[in-house]
Amino acid sequence: MSRYKKQILLYGNTRNCADIFYFVGASVHDDFFCFTLNGYKCALLSPLEIGRLRRTSKLDRIFDYAQIVKTMPESSSKSYFDVLVWLLKKHKIHSLQVPSYFPIGMFDKFLEAGFHIEYVEGQFFQARTQKKSDELAEIRKANDVASACFDWLENILKASEIRKGGKLFYRGSVLTCEYARQGIEQMAISLGADALDTVVACGNQACDPHEVGSGAIKADSLIVVDIFPRLRKSGYFGDMTRTFLKGSPSEAQAKLVKSVRNAQLLALKKIRAGVNGADVHSTVCKYFSKSGFETKIIKGSWGGFFHSTGHGLGLEVHESPSLSTRDCRLQKGNVITVEPGLYYRGIGGCRIEDNVVVETNGATMLSDFHYNWIID
Amino acid sequence: MSRYKKQILLYGNTRNCADIFYFVGASVHDDFFCFTLNGYKCALLSPLEIGRLRRTSKLDRIFDYAQIVKTMPESSSKSYFDVLVWLLKKHKIHSLQVPSYFPIGMFDKFLEAGFHIEYVEGQFFQARTQKKSDELAEIRKANDVASACFDWLENILKASEIRKGGKLFYRGSVLTCEYARQGIEQMAISLGADALDTVVACGNQACDPHEVGSGAIKADSLIVVDIFPRLRKSGYFGDMTRTFLKGSPSEAQAKLVKSVRNAQLLALKKIRAGVNGADVHSTVCKYFSKSGFETKIIKGSWGGFFHSTGHGLGLEVHESPSLSTRDCRLQKGNVITVEPGLYYRGIGGCRIEDNVVVETNGATMLSDFHYNWIID
Repeated sequence: MSRYKKQILLYGNTRNCADIFYFVGASVHDDFFCFTLNGYKCALLSPLEIGRLRRTSKLDRIFDYAQIVKTMPESSSKSYFDVLVWLLKKHKIHSLQVPSYFPIGMFDKFLEAGFHIEYVEGQFFQARTQKKSDELAEIRKANDVASACFDWLENILKASEIRKGGKLFYRGSVLTCEYARQGIEQMAISLGADALDTVVACGNQACDPHEVGSGAIKADSLIVVDIFPRLRKSGYFGDMTRTFLKGSPSEAQAKLVKSVRNAQLLALKKIRAGVNGADVHSTVCKYFSKSGFETKIIKGSWGGFFHSTGHGLGLEVHESPSLSTRDCRLQKGNVITVEPGLYYRGIGGCRIEDNVVVETNGATMLSDFHYNWIID
Repeated sequence: MSRYKKQILLYGNTRNCADIFYFVGASVHDDFFCFTLNGYKCALLSPLEIGRLRRTSKLDRIFDYAQIVKTMPESSSKSYFDVLVWLLKKHKIHSLQVPSYFPIGMFDKFLEAGFHIEYVEGQFFQARTQKKSDELAEIRKANDVASACFDWLENILKASEIRKGGKLFYRGSVLTCEYARQGIEQMAISLGADALDTVVACGNQACDPHEVGSGAIKADSLIVVDIFPRLRKSGYFGDMTRTFLKGSPSEAQAKLVKSVRNAQLLALKKIRAGVNGADVHSTVCKYFSKSGFETKIIKGSWGGFFHSTGHGLGLEVHESPSLSTRDCRLQKGNVITVEPGLYYRGIGGCRIEDNVVVETNGATMLSDFHYNWIID
């Protein structure tokens, strides 16, 4: 039974390329070729990887580079590329389909070697955009890691005391973004995930949405915490953001947070199969501007809502589809983040992010953590 | 003053592409374009990244996608690609040089848009292969993280007791590969580095060199510990391996470890500028086979020495040059790992890995941890 009709070829490694991880189902950190032969999933690997991959991967057949070299004519060139070409030709493969991100240099080498090679625009494995129940379970699990980390940080904020100058002290030391991030990342590891580049940023720092944050966490200041843990075993991501404040919020901060949460609820209500992602995003934009939150450059920096409402989530932390200005029809089984945010220097930043799976008649939550943001 | 003579263009993100990280000097996790204009380093970025990158990157000029869109004719298409094309044409750029790993789909789009575009085979930034003193300092620092982790694990092995059945107990619980790996990875985080995919594997598990290891760590068994921490700030990697044994080694284990260490010393002695990396590798291979360690398939699995003697190290954990079967002239300033290993099911695996910088008259160590492998 052929599982793949076209003769496909991928080149790269599982750290850099989610399609390869999806195809292989195990980690390989050096660039290698994987491909189909008569519909079966194959790879050409060095002895360094073979034993482990034969035990742990989803590959049907693993070719041993070092073994094949021995069977090749003595005169032939034996680079990794040459060995693959020899192998494909031996199996009468002359036509290859590759993704559009295939390296140009490698593409040309296959042309020169006499192959008919073509690339596919857009998503290479369509199945990746419509998640199956086991994939949804993994994304929920990754979000549970994020929730456990929020819970840990919330308890630390609760246990911290506010001292003169508005600094927070935890167990006698100044509570810093670095301490919080380290605790979150170490907790994620203990739960089987990597939470690289976790954001714990407060005040004006959080107005750059990808600023990870540094220095003291301050009282009466909005603290944006964005955690996107990747499960080590399956490779699936969760992605959640909560905004906290230790102390007493100003009226402006309270209005900001309330509006972001309202915008998130509006977006969530609109999501179902068939809807255009751009319409969901536009709903959020309109709500913010109607509520008096303008998006514009203020004293040389962007203020307001200047990122998209959401993005696909799976084996990549950002994948298709999107909730942005781009037209994009949502399909059943898409997993997307819903993460409106508002950022104004002087007030601070707020982002609230959850994930849902798109259903025929709505959206089902895949993330679960409360929205109480004020910590006494 | 022009710093780059050719008009270069890169596409990708700093997580996947070390060249982009080298060019930009700060993290950007979504794919984006960076390029030179009149020799200056530029990037086209969304408002999401601009504030942070203006503060933290090595870029000379950052173009704001959202701002440029406003200045474009209303009728024109405004995808991220279109905006870059508009920008380049406005600056009278019609000719581009890209790396050989540039995506084929994107390459064709530039051709269609009327650009003269060509790719460079091999290393895109030659300077990356010959490290400067600040880069060497970062690699040393990353190796110091690895050494601190070895020290932590060694103390745990010392404090563990051997109980019936050969299992190790630490603080009353079975000592596992998972526990050791988690401790190492958490320690690395506390030292400002990520030590993803750390190997702690013992017995036959370690005979697959990239197997990370699982289950109980056993007494009288060779424990391969391979740690390659990446400094978060600078992005440079360290890469060290030590092999330990808690209890008493067999004669075969002792001979294996001694031979691997001897092979490493032989290789280190041969390394200096001008030497062919393949000759260094071949010295190790010959020494092993002369010492009675054959490399061959034994009962369906590879045994002996079946990986390369070393690889380049820097912003990538594996980069050029190599100490392998491939011809490759070593140059002053190359940083390479020296990591012979022997693996036989029944005896176990041993790998010892350090890093050096290639000098005119020899090699200087960049890693420092003792070689006492037997722990009582």
